[in-house]
Amino acid sequence: MKDALAVIRERTSINHFDSSKQIHEAEIRAIVADATQAPSSYNIQHWRFVAVTDPERKKQLQAAAYNQAKVGQASATIIVLGDLRGYEKMHTILAPLVKAGTITQEAADSTAQRAAAPYMNNPQFQRDEAIRSGALAAMTFMIAAQARGYVTGPMIGFDPEQVKRIFGISDRYVPVMLITLGHTAPGNSPRKPRLGVDEVLAFNQGREF
Amino acid sequence: MKDALAVIRERTSINHFDSSKQIHEAEIRAIVADATQAPSSYNIQHWRFVAVTDPERKKQLQAAAYNQAKVGQASATIIVLGDLRGYEKMHTILAPLVKAGTITQEAADSTAQRAAAPYMNNPQFQRDEAIRSGALAAMTFMIAAQARGYVTGPMIGFDPEQVKRIFGISDRYVPVMLITLGHTAPGNSPRKPRLGVDEVLAFNQGREF
Repeated sequence: MKDALAVIRERTSINHFDSSKQIHEAEIRAIVADATQAPSSYNIQHWRFVAVTDPERKKQLQAAAYNQAKVGQASATIIVLGDLRGYEKMHTILAPLVKAGTITQEAADSTAQRAAAPYMNNPQFQRDEAIRSGALAAMTFMIAAQARGYVTGPMIGFDPEQVKRIFGISDRYVPVMLITLGHTAPGNSPRKPRLGVDEVLAFNQGREF
Repeated sequence: MKDALAVIRERTSINHFDSSKQIHEAEIRAIVADATQAPSSYNIQHWRFVAVTDPERKKQLQAAAYNQAKVGQASATIIVLGDLRGYEKMHTILAPLVKAGTITQEAADSTAQRAAAPYMNNPQFQRDEAIRSGALAAMTFMIAAQARGYVTGPMIGFDPEQVKRIFGISDRYVPVMLITLGHTAPGNSPRKPRLGVDEVLAFNQGREF
């Protein structure tokens, strides 16, 4: 049992991983199950995950991430994706509620239609939501991993088009970030100080921060 | 002390809040301090927060959120912003490290320059990062609030331009989402089921999910 607030404060972005440590697929599945507890508009769950654990595949991913060594050293590196057409799954998402009698098929159809409406002919909204939901799940992933005794490192330093090509990821998915996952090694920098609360928070009125 | 994994599983999006409950500014400041423990590229910390606690201001925000009652009912509603020009704060962010002798002024200048480079003449990257970092902080906010005994509700159903106008928020800030914060009331729906892990996770190779 790990205190949630302590986990939030302990979590720091790791650059040096113990490359001798492996991680079981079952552990990755458990952390992804935690990550999917994040919220999303209409429960669309735009997040998708490609977990890269194979040594050869990690090398290829490292090459697409400007050769940053941590991608190869980490036990796994997760490609977090956001689905631009996540709303298309609304019928699948609502099916258990229809089956349980919680909502009618008519209500499900109407909800699916309302959920899809803002994405129609609006690529900017599609992208915004793919990134927003992907990031919500990514943050939950990192907190859950930390709670389970792992360390992580979020990364945006990679070529998204190259990553998509190497891993056979179609254009409906936006790479939101990479998360390296594993065990720490010597040489990591201390946690970076944050701006003070009063530098980022205002009450009842905006301002230049 | 609240177990991190239990908090992740308990957190659910709340629609009905107890409007008789207030929240102290000190509590909001504590949760925002937790939220700022989220990671960001180069530690830029693009997130900003406007906490709306004043009853009149909550009414105005509710009107800009298609009149959804929860905005007015919640003890506070937080406007989470992302700074499109967050990189401009890099000198402020690095100053404590220079002062402590951890890095030289020359190293700080060089880091600030590298951090800023991808944002130059790239409005899409500015927006992506504002949303990505804002969402990472928003998720941490919701988990921290839950750990501290509050409930939350993330919302994207609002008019961002109207919110900016009402609260005097300039165009350098993107409204990433609203988070209602407070205490639960009767009438909330049960937590929505999630897609299974195998519906959102692949190993070493992408696919159509």
